Amino acid sequence: MAKTARNHNTKKNELVGIAEKLFLEKGYEETSIEDILKASGLSKGGFYHYFKSKDEVLAESINHFADSLLQELEPIIEDRELNALEKLKRFMEKKNASQKSKRELIKYLAMLMKSDFTFYKYNLTITQKYVEPLAQIIEQGVEEGIFKVKFPRETADILLRTVTSLPQSVFFSEYIEDKTKSEQYKTSLEAIMVRALGIENEHIGIFG
Amino acid sequence: MAKTARNHNTKKNELVGIAEKLFLEKGYEETSIEDILKASGLSKGGFYHYFKSKDEVLAESINHFADSLLQELEPIIEDRELNALEKLKRFMEKKNASQKSKRELIKYLAMLMKSDFTFYKYNLTITQKYVEPLAQIIEQGVEEGIFKVKFPRETADILLRTVTSLPQSVFFSEYIEDKTKSEQYKTSLEAIMVRALGIENEHIGIFG
Repeated sequence: MAKTARNHNTKKNELVGIAEKLFLEKGYEETSIEDILKASGLSKGGFYHYFKSKDEVLAESINHFADSLLQELEPIIEDRELNALEKLKRFMEKKNASQKSKRELIKYLAMLMKSDFTFYKYNLTITQKYVEPLAQIIEQGVEEGIFKVKFPRETADILLRTVTSLPQSVFFSEYIEDKTKSEQYKTSLEAIMVRALGIENEHIGIFG
Repeated sequence: MAKTARNHNTKKNELVGIAEKLFLEKGYEETSIEDILKASGLSKGGFYHYFKSKDEVLAESINHFADSLLQELEPIIEDRELNALEKLKRFMEKKNASQKSKRELIKYLAMLMKSDFTFYKYNLTITQKYVEPLAQIIEQGVEEGIFKVKFPRETADILLRTVTSLPQSVFFSEYIEDKTKSEQYKTSLEAIMVRALGIENEHIGIFG
């Protein structure tokens, strides 16, 4: 990458970081572009050099998050020493670790997804980035005889949507706020995923 | 219901039927309120007596569809002669039969859901109407020892979203247009559902 392009990206990332903080402190709706300008010291022109809108800032923040997780997953997927179950567990570990550091932001995004189509669509786009890596793990597991799955790609596609569709639940707020409900949800989701792969009685740590 | 209220509903339903036909013939976007007026012989004032917008007409059409299916499901759920697996199969049969008669409309709605939040949200609302009946079936199955599920309500909630989330797939159009892909998707979804309930090797006919 040329130096100017690198600079551009660094600046852009900085701006995303500053905006993320504001979104969490004040709420996304309540944060204005003015607020972002103030906190970043940028001019209006400066902001619009990087982004078309506030939505685009949040979209970029979600994209970053997804891409950096994908990058972390790559060496796991490619590791020839690991069997598929190990890979799946590390996949989940990585996902959980990186989600933990962004817990509040993710909760917030999940809320937004319930009422805002833009964020719903970003969530879709991101979920879909993980279909291929998960499909590869399932395929390996089938070859190793650890997983019993007929169509790895379809199964990966369905399971990822199953795992990420919580905001679409009628009980969404209960699952977020009520500890017992939340535990029951996690247990059920883990059971479904584990059984779907044909590896009953394994704990794969969907939520850590 | 008073006679006038019944008349109001009959007229409203007629209007929905006429509009549905137009949506399918011309496409939803391409159908104007003018078109609906023309086909129904209603005045503009007449239309707005029943509906605020074209979206509301389609929403009503989806609601009708969901409610009439729910009504058909009631006697199955309440039948004391049927075990849970029988109930689940009849549940699926009813769902498939009523979807078959509206196949084109449902396909069309699934398309809309990908780009229009209103329809995405209606789909959610409708899916959620089936959580309780499915939860009751699962609960009965657990009591009968046919299903192995720890939390029937959570499992019903997750599985219904799993079954209805196809429009959110990255491979959506392949599943709709490609016969092989479509079969693989159905097989995978059925396997996940059957395994999730702990009743391996049963055919429950998710898609008929």
